[in-house]
Amino acid sequence: MQSFEQLLQQFEAYFSVRQFPEEPASLYDASQYILGIGGKRVRPVMCLMGNELFDTIKTDAWYMASAIELFHNFSLIHDDIMDEAPLRRGKPTVHSIHGVNTAILAGDVTLTKAYDCLSKVNPAILQPLLNLFNKTALEVSEGQQMDMDFEKRETVSFDEYVRMIELKTSVLLAASLKLGSMIGGASVGNTEHIYEFGRNLGIAFQVQDDYLDAFGDPAKFGKQVGGDIKANKKTFLMIYALESGTQEQQQQLHELMKTNPADKVEKVLAIFKAAGVDEWAMQLKNQYLEKAMQHLESIAVMSKRKEPLKELARFLVQRDY
Amino acid sequence: MQSFEQLLQQFEAYFSVRQFPEEPASLYDASQYILGIGGKRVRPVMCLMGNELFDTIKTDAWYMASAIELFHNFSLIHDDIMDEAPLRRGKPTVHSIHGVNTAILAGDVTLTKAYDCLSKVNPAILQPLLNLFNKTALEVSEGQQMDMDFEKRETVSFDEYVRMIELKTSVLLAASLKLGSMIGGASVGNTEHIYEFGRNLGIAFQVQDDYLDAFGDPAKFGKQVGGDIKANKKTFLMIYALESGTQEQQQQLHELMKTNPADKVEKVLAIFKAAGVDEWAMQLKNQYLEKAMQHLESIAVMSKRKEPLKELARFLVQRDY
Repeated sequence: MQSFEQLLQQFEAYFSVRQFPEEPASLYDASQYILGIGGKRVRPVMCLMGNELFDTIKTDAWYMASAIELFHNFSLIHDDIMDEAPLRRGKPTVHSIHGVNTAILAGDVTLTKAYDCLSKVNPAILQPLLNLFNKTALEVSEGQQMDMDFEKRETVSFDEYVRMIELKTSVLLAASLKLGSMIGGASVGNTEHIYEFGRNLGIAFQVQDDYLDAFGDPAKFGKQVGGDIKANKKTFLMIYALESGTQEQQQQLHELMKTNPADKVEKVLAIFKAAGVDEWAMQLKNQYLEKAMQHLESIAVMSKRKEPLKELARFLVQRDY
Repeated sequence: MQSFEQLLQQFEAYFSVRQFPEEPASLYDASQYILGIGGKRVRPVMCLMGNELFDTIKTDAWYMASAIELFHNFSLIHDDIMDEAPLRRGKPTVHSIHGVNTAILAGDVTLTKAYDCLSKVNPAILQPLLNLFNKTALEVSEGQQMDMDFEKRETVSFDEYVRMIELKTSVLLAASLKLGSMIGGASVGNTEHIYEFGRNLGIAFQVQDDYLDAFGDPAKFGKQVGGDIKANKKTFLMIYALESGTQEQQQQLHELMKTNPADKVEKVLAIFKAAGVDEWAMQLKNQYLEKAMQHLESIAVMSKRKEPLKELARFLVQRDY
């Protein structure tokens, strides 16, 4: 069994070759660019780990891992256009270098290339892998659309927000593990447990992310604290405060979002603390982490094989940066 | 053997059901919309014809035909964004109704749904079909990128233009036929001939399209004649005139494109006629049509089975509207 770090190194070596044809360079250089500006490669490594939980890593898992990383980058290219984001991982986004039109196409060919990698797997298991991949791809787009729809709405319920996060973030983590486990020959029951492990872990991860944006240590977090608050983003914290705070707290929050005073971040954080949002968020995160761990427990393989996944789970949701 | 018209009717009936989930409606209604505003369905019917040339039409051909039509519509949604086109088939484009962001996503899910249809084919032939589909999808995007690159350039050579048209238009027609023929059990040699038939026919079709824009009868053509000339588009006609006209004609054309006088269309058409562009274009179209027909002849099936494809070819390149 190999650790996340060990598999990450191998994936980086495997994936560092150019993934696209040379010409037309005006298109494919744009696609290749985003693959080269870093990224944690969490999803492709989860695919490899999903395979190795059940069997030695097969060639097919490498094709699948590449397909997943390409898919993820396709969605980043297009999301960055929609969000008008100037930077990604501290570097200029594809559309801000190459223009929106080429970025749309660069995303399109990155998605097609993902299918091209996927098509290389053993034909005997191609169809079930393709089905899960397609289902997940649709869900990720649905999540992005819901996120955009929520921006235009006054209120979003807790359940709606969880569903959006599940689609936009969790299902790809879950599918990465499950696709790997299918290649590793896991039983249907085991593939379902690993999927649920990833799905719950993904939600716990997002709770942590929302928490850090409000309560993280700026020195460690690496980005401006309170960014979500400044942008009036509906996060786990804000939705909880608007649903469970006192009527006065709710009114104050609505007022702050409307008027955008200079001290909005401090004032919102003070309300969050008074309403117990920080403690609630930690509890919520632990609930999802607990559910994830139960599903990991339920997978019928020797406990020792699960260590790397346990370690990854702890790392992902207990990070303070 | 069934005619294009007969198969078209059947495909329309098959494809008229909703292709997307109901929710989120803000996303999937946008994707479904473009499928419902008409379109000639040439590509999916060519897939069915490619199958029927060799054998009775299989269930797989219907999945494949749907995948092809979905792919085509994905590319239209994204192309219309890039071209800032307000209308498609006389109706508002997806982005002009739903905004660019939703249109990007609507294109993305339409592409994913194409792969979803494709994944339903018999696993025994899924991989080769997927390979050709992926290759074609990349090529279509390459063609679109080349088209955008050409807009920024002063001159484009004849060979470059043919290559762009081949990628942007011809390969999908060619692949539609070939994918159908593969489902119909055609030999490798026969699938190559049908591909070349489609590829050459596609170029002939584009020559005809460029010709009609300049020399078509406005009453029959259904759109404004001279649109390409007004937009300074590099077409077969313009490229030939700029390569083969007298030095004076070439200078006049460059001048007209730069100054955009009110009588630009009439003046350019006069130069085209003086340089023999119209006759040359008809010859060029017939050359490609001839090549296409030779490949159709070379397919080792009874001549009678080829009648519907011959008729379609004549229809596509001899239309005057």
